[in-house]
Amino acid sequence: MRERFEQMIRSAQDSICSQVEALDGTKFREDAWVRENGGGGISRVLANGNVFEKAGVNVSVVYGTMPPEAVAAASARGVTRDVGFKPGEAVPFFAAGISSVMHPWNPMAPTMHFNYRYFETDRGLWWFGGGTDLTPSYLYEEDARHFHGTLKTTCDKHDPKFYPDFKKWCDDYFLIKHRNERRGLGGIFFDDLNDRPAEDLLAFSTDCASTVCDAYLPIVSKRKDEEFTEEQKRWQQIRRARYVEYNLVYDRGTVFGLKTGGRIESILMSLPLTARWEYDHKPEKGSWEEKTLDAMITPKEWAS
Amino acid sequence: MRERFEQMIRSAQDSICSQVEALDGTKFREDAWVRENGGGGISRVLANGNVFEKAGVNVSVVYGTMPPEAVAAASARGVTRDVGFKPGEAVPFFAAGISSVMHPWNPMAPTMHFNYRYFETDRGLWWFGGGTDLTPSYLYEEDARHFHGTLKTTCDKHDPKFYPDFKKWCDDYFLIKHRNERRGLGGIFFDDLNDRPAEDLLAFSTDCASTVCDAYLPIVSKRKDEEFTEEQKRWQQIRRARYVEYNLVYDRGTVFGLKTGGRIESILMSLPLTARWEYDHKPEKGSWEEKTLDAMITPKEWAS
Repeated sequence: MRERFEQMIRSAQDSICSQVEALDGTKFREDAWVRENGGGGISRVLANGNVFEKAGVNVSVVYGTMPPEAVAAASARGVTRDVGFKPGEAVPFFAAGISSVMHPWNPMAPTMHFNYRYFETDRGLWWFGGGTDLTPSYLYEEDARHFHGTLKTTCDKHDPKFYPDFKKWCDDYFLIKHRNERRGLGGIFFDDLNDRPAEDLLAFSTDCASTVCDAYLPIVSKRKDEEFTEEQKRWQQIRRARYVEYNLVYDRGTVFGLKTGGRIESILMSLPLTARWEYDHKPEKGSWEEKTLDAMITPKEWAS
Repeated sequence: MRERFEQMIRSAQDSICSQVEALDGTKFREDAWVRENGGGGISRVLANGNVFEKAGVNVSVVYGTMPPEAVAAASARGVTRDVGFKPGEAVPFFAAGISSVMHPWNPMAPTMHFNYRYFETDRGLWWFGGGTDLTPSYLYEEDARHFHGTLKTTCDKHDPKFYPDFKKWCDDYFLIKHRNERRGLGGIFFDDLNDRPAEDLLAFSTDCASTVCDAYLPIVSKRKDEEFTEEQKRWQQIRRARYVEYNLVYDRGTVFGLKTGGRIESILMSLPLTARWEYDHKPEKGSWEEKTLDAMITPKEWAS
């Protein structure tokens, strides 16, 4: 499973980067890095593109040992199950994942994030996690329906419960608690998944990673050349700042990575190129901005 | 002491805001807010000024009860001393403080932050905390010497050990751990101070708060109209992003405030108007940018 998952995320990285390059017209830069205590990764970044201000696709495969508490902290629900780890024990682990954030220039084109990962320790403990979610500055309902619809179709091939369960989990997970609003319009999120054969979950993760571009790129194609005003660009920048707030304050991967000495530039690749904090900014009543924000305060069904 | 400290920070707020308005030529906007469980505050913000992109001066006075663990978490060293609190007890507390961040437009003019506070609980537990620190994008050694020299003069009036001790504390406190660099050039920082009569520490805090403008505004006056290039503005924006990283990931006041339901807009007033994250940006060898960054990686003595 280790090798097959690594194989899967590497070919997903190649395929996704090619599709993004074809749309953007510029190339990703690649940085390979090595982790001191075992493993490493490949970061690919497309900066200052024609369509994207910043797009990054990271693959990492790391291994070594960690204390049982860190094993628990590695999943969203903090589950380790009872496999008999002793406090202080050095537990051999393996973790592999692909993660990506893409920020287009045009405020009418949304940001997208996805992440798929596999975690394994000694004594047969393993799980899959991941998700794909959309963060527009301006709500186009047809885009939200296309994005969620594509995720639902992918999920439904594997289990009819996946989409509704993982859609709700995503809405809960990407909450900016201090604002009581979500980072975006959601998508799917799951973690600590091992309730069926690893084989089936590999197939599910593979399908998810390979439909990311189908869910997202057609929206960018459609919106990348929309006209916009300076005011609309400013609102995009304010929404970018919320993205930064979520990632630096709440995002488990980011906070965990920063505090445990991951590769900083790969971790912070998820941040937008620029962001803006205006004191006490509120969108006008009845405006497009307010309507967009409302969909992040009260999650809606986009695929049913 | 409660009333006298509150009196002191209110008049410091008035005096500092007047001096900033005189320099900037525009006015602060004021928002008063009430805390659900006792107390409230006055936030003053000058946004989109002639000299400052954003300057805020907050005063807050809050009271109520908190568990003993929260009392410990309220000081930098987590000290509560042995006054006999029982776990789960509702400890009556009082906390008052003034805090401020000022971000000028011109990349040659530095950002400044200060904060002075007094904390008290039942059974005679109390302490003072505070500090003033400078964050330039471009190092002017004469400015650093003026700033630190003014702080040292103020400290030396009260105790010759204050400046060296609090300068070091400041360098340690404002460390962006994941980058191994400080937020800026430091200044002074102290917390949990109660090793002499409260009377003396009130006098010290009062002096500190009333020399903030002497330490800072002459530098802004001198730099606010310096010429600069687009590249230099871009570097300022990259440094602003470091400010955001520090405040959202490490700053105790910010993180504590966000997670315990303080007034969000007052807490996040400290963030710059705009910031920029470029992938893997490194200043050129031997450049002014590198020299500035170096002074944040290896703190220097500016007043001796």
